[in-house]
Amino acid sequence: MDREDRNYQVKDTDHLLDYKTIFGNDNPVELEIGCGKGLFAREIAKKNPGINFLAVEKSSNVVVEAAEKAIEENIPNLIFLRGGAEYLDCYIPASSVDRIYLNFSCPYPKKSYASHRLTHRNFLEIYKKIMKKDAEIHQKTDNMHFFEFSIEEFSASDFYVKNVSLDLHSSEFKGNIMTEYEKRFSDQGFPIYRLEAIMKE
Amino acid sequence: MDREDRNYQVKDTDHLLDYKTIFGNDNPVELEIGCGKGLFAREIAKKNPGINFLAVEKSSNVVVEAAEKAIEENIPNLIFLRGGAEYLDCYIPASSVDRIYLNFSCPYPKKSYASHRLTHRNFLEIYKKIMKKDAEIHQKTDNMHFFEFSIEEFSASDFYVKNVSLDLHSSEFKGNIMTEYEKRFSDQGFPIYRLEAIMKE
Repeated sequence: MDREDRNYQVKDTDHLLDYKTIFGNDNPVELEIGCGKGLFAREIAKKNPGINFLAVEKSSNVVVEAAEKAIEENIPNLIFLRGGAEYLDCYIPASSVDRIYLNFSCPYPKKSYASHRLTHRNFLEIYKKIMKKDAEIHQKTDNMHFFEFSIEEFSASDFYVKNVSLDLHSSEFKGNIMTEYEKRFSDQGFPIYRLEAIMKE
Repeated sequence: MDREDRNYQVKDTDHLLDYKTIFGNDNPVELEIGCGKGLFAREIAKKNPGINFLAVEKSSNVVVEAAEKAIEENIPNLIFLRGGAEYLDCYIPASSVDRIYLNFSCPYPKKSYASHRLTHRNFLEIYKKIMKKDAEIHQKTDNMHFFEFSIEEFSASDFYVKNVSLDLHSSEFKGNIMTEYEKRFSDQGFPIYRLEAIMKE
């Protein structure tokens, strides 16, 4: 989110989404934050017609391309939202999300950019607001230091972590939806890191 | 700890150690659980004369060898304790330990042996009893699945984890004391995993 956006977006709740209106039903809602071109979102939405997916992406160009592909494929349970994660609680009703996916988020390797990482504790506090009590965050990354950081941030922010995998593709985990990026990276022999995080009561 | 030991050792507090008597001073006390032949314990004790080290090992043969070497090297701040970790709170006074080291503990890869792993939540509850409020557990292992398990157990047992490293020898961590085992393993190109855990209040 650039400076202009920051000035112009006011953090209020006038713009909360009405799921019933946008999805046409009351099915559970899951979120992908940083969906990029939306391959994962399209796949998971098609495989789970009983769940509504909101795919969030801050880059306008990217999200337009993602939405166009989803329209071509006619996926009624997938909606795209253009915006930065720092404003999620302005659009997403409190305690309304069943699951959040963080797939290969930008690791921002430089320490001075740590607050931009999507598992920084500032973001985790926003996610907590919009997550239902038993909701889960599912994170995947190929970046070791980002994963180390993420474990520490979840731990410091009163999340439990479970099903931690330090090499997803050699693990027993079933049902992984692999993006192009993930496949390419994994084919080169690098491990994929994954975890699930749930809020403590 | 074999069946005979289990029958014969009663979990009472008649045998609590008196640090002043065994170490001759009131210096902080740190523990290594599963010290093996004691190389790490000897190194760290020699480098830190102002700290008292208790090295715990359940195998009698191994601990005798470790103690003999320590005697040869004349290390007054290192004491060995023969026993299983499940009985630590019978010997170690409550809230008395400043740090616990778990170095390359047996990973017990089979799921049916998970309760033997030294980061199983049952053990963590015992460690909590003997740890001071701000005490830390420092864990190192070369076993990926044991490390995944450990992160989950610390998380489920109200510990914060920090300074997580998924490849210790390529990290910025300073002051690592490398055992023979660690060196051999690392020389083969395998990563060493490390974390620090502290109790939540």
